[in-house]
Amino acid sequence: MKLLSVVTTEGHRLAAKIDSGVLIFSDANSLLSESGSFFPLTLQEIFASGKDFFQIESRLRSFIADPRVSQYVRPESEIKIAKPFTPHNVICVGLNYKDHAEESKIASPEQPVLFAKWTGAMIGPNDPIILPLDTKEVDYEAELAVVIGRECSGVRAENALDYVAGYTCLNDVSARDFQRGDGQWVRAKSQDTFGPFGPYLVTKDDVPDPQILGITCSVNGRVLQNSNTSKMIFSVRELIAFISRGVTLRPGDVISTGTPHGVGFAQKPPVFLKAGDQVVVEIKAIGQLSNPVNER
Amino acid sequence: MKLLSVVTTEGHRLAAKIDSGVLIFSDANSLLSESGSFFPLTLQEIFASGKDFFQIESRLRSFIADPRVSQYVRPESEIKIAKPFTPHNVICVGLNYKDHAEESKIASPEQPVLFAKWTGAMIGPNDPIILPLDTKEVDYEAELAVVIGRECSGVRAENALDYVAGYTCLNDVSARDFQRGDGQWVRAKSQDTFGPFGPYLVTKDDVPDPQILGITCSVNGRVLQNSNTSKMIFSVRELIAFISRGVTLRPGDVISTGTPHGVGFAQKPPVFLKAGDQVVVEIKAIGQLSNPVNER
Repeated sequence: MKLLSVVTTEGHRLAAKIDSGVLIFSDANSLLSESGSFFPLTLQEIFASGKDFFQIESRLRSFIADPRVSQYVRPESEIKIAKPFTPHNVICVGLNYKDHAEESKIASPEQPVLFAKWTGAMIGPNDPIILPLDTKEVDYEAELAVVIGRECSGVRAENALDYVAGYTCLNDVSARDFQRGDGQWVRAKSQDTFGPFGPYLVTKDDVPDPQILGITCSVNGRVLQNSNTSKMIFSVRELIAFISRGVTLRPGDVISTGTPHGVGFAQKPPVFLKAGDQVVVEIKAIGQLSNPVNER
Repeated sequence: MKLLSVVTTEGHRLAAKIDSGVLIFSDANSLLSESGSFFPLTLQEIFASGKDFFQIESRLRSFIADPRVSQYVRPESEIKIAKPFTPHNVICVGLNYKDHAEESKIASPEQPVLFAKWTGAMIGPNDPIILPLDTKEVDYEAELAVVIGRECSGVRAENALDYVAGYTCLNDVSARDFQRGDGQWVRAKSQDTFGPFGPYLVTKDDVPDPQILGITCSVNGRVLQNSNTSKMIFSVRELIAFISRGVTLRPGDVISTGTPHGVGFAQKPPVFLKAGDQVVVEIKAIGQLSNPVNER
């Protein structure tokens, strides 16, 4: 199932992308009340509650299987997709593809390197990445993002996917000059608009193996990153196990699993984002996340 | 005004500490409805709304000035104080006291060094700091924490306090071995329970100058940090100006302003926290934050 947030006149609303288009759940209110169902209005509401994602997920899935919902389905071209939700925390993983560690001239890490992105940076598909005044080196990073669906700590790798609600695309936009100068990476990674993610939360049942997904990033149609999640040094399972040894993960936390080779600073000559660019992160079976780049 | 969260049978409730004790606003429901007032039930609710803190603050202040509230005031000894709220983001500042940079054998920074604490680590007064299994070097750091009350970006230092809701105490508990090994500090600073803060959100009107406050940390009654916020390299105003150049600050974001000299790893011999310890952060006019240390 592909869940998303849609901009409506009443605010953001929870929706599902299905074969025939997009179903905004609140459009089907009469069917909902007939079935005695109550659904949260937004993904935000689901994750704010802290409740287990999987209960609501199975109810949503049953509902969209009802043939009568077809009358409410809209063409995707008629809706505007919003940011999926604001994560509680964004836990990022650095240098998690061997080829990217090499291009960064840093030894592959022996254990995951974690850093943070403050959540105010998160934006949705088609929202502009705004170039800050103080940096001249704004770079893209295509990443597979994992959305936690059930609270967990001390998880073993073999069970780790039990706690995953699903996956989405994330562009870990980075100010390289800040990153070099600061040592700590969070400011470089958390400038306003530096966290595009979406468009869909693709639930786990649609992604039998998160480690076989083609992942690309293109700028103005030129493919600059082209890899596969099979090349991660630490798999999604291993990352969840590592993080949750000491950091309890909660529904609505996002783990961004690192970027492959081909980032802008390692291109020859370097490619930094400039106003007018269009950046597209695409992950096979997960979606395509496209954002324009604007002046401040 | 000193606001706090109190544990009640209905959950956490917004309260104010006044001279005669503690007023839980929801206790005074009949007075509230008579006055036509509606107050949020929790600090969490105030900050989740994203609304300007100052409107609700002035209404709370008028309400507690009503002499009839005295009948609802309870002795502080009869209430249990909870975590004030869960911040949207915790923005920490490293090496912001010259003497602490020196004891860390790092040059004083030319601009603020920012890092993050994931919000799941935040706990309240008297909640135990739990020692994680994987670290042998758990350290304390007494810090003045600033709570943002109004959305802001691109703030000038001279106006920066206009956006501050108030102040509280924060213990930036840190696993030094993780911090050294990882390079990035966030994991070392975000282990579960590594973010005690509180007990009060002391609103700005009670703190005419945040740069003249005595700050101490003691472990089992032994004073190990003893400094003054006058010794910060970058003042609260300068920090807000620096951060907000590129990172929009929102109500419910917390900035922790760095720790003075005297942390455990720099003691001779080093002092790391062990089960049974009691750690107390005290900031003049802001409060006393006390937490026991427990085995996992």
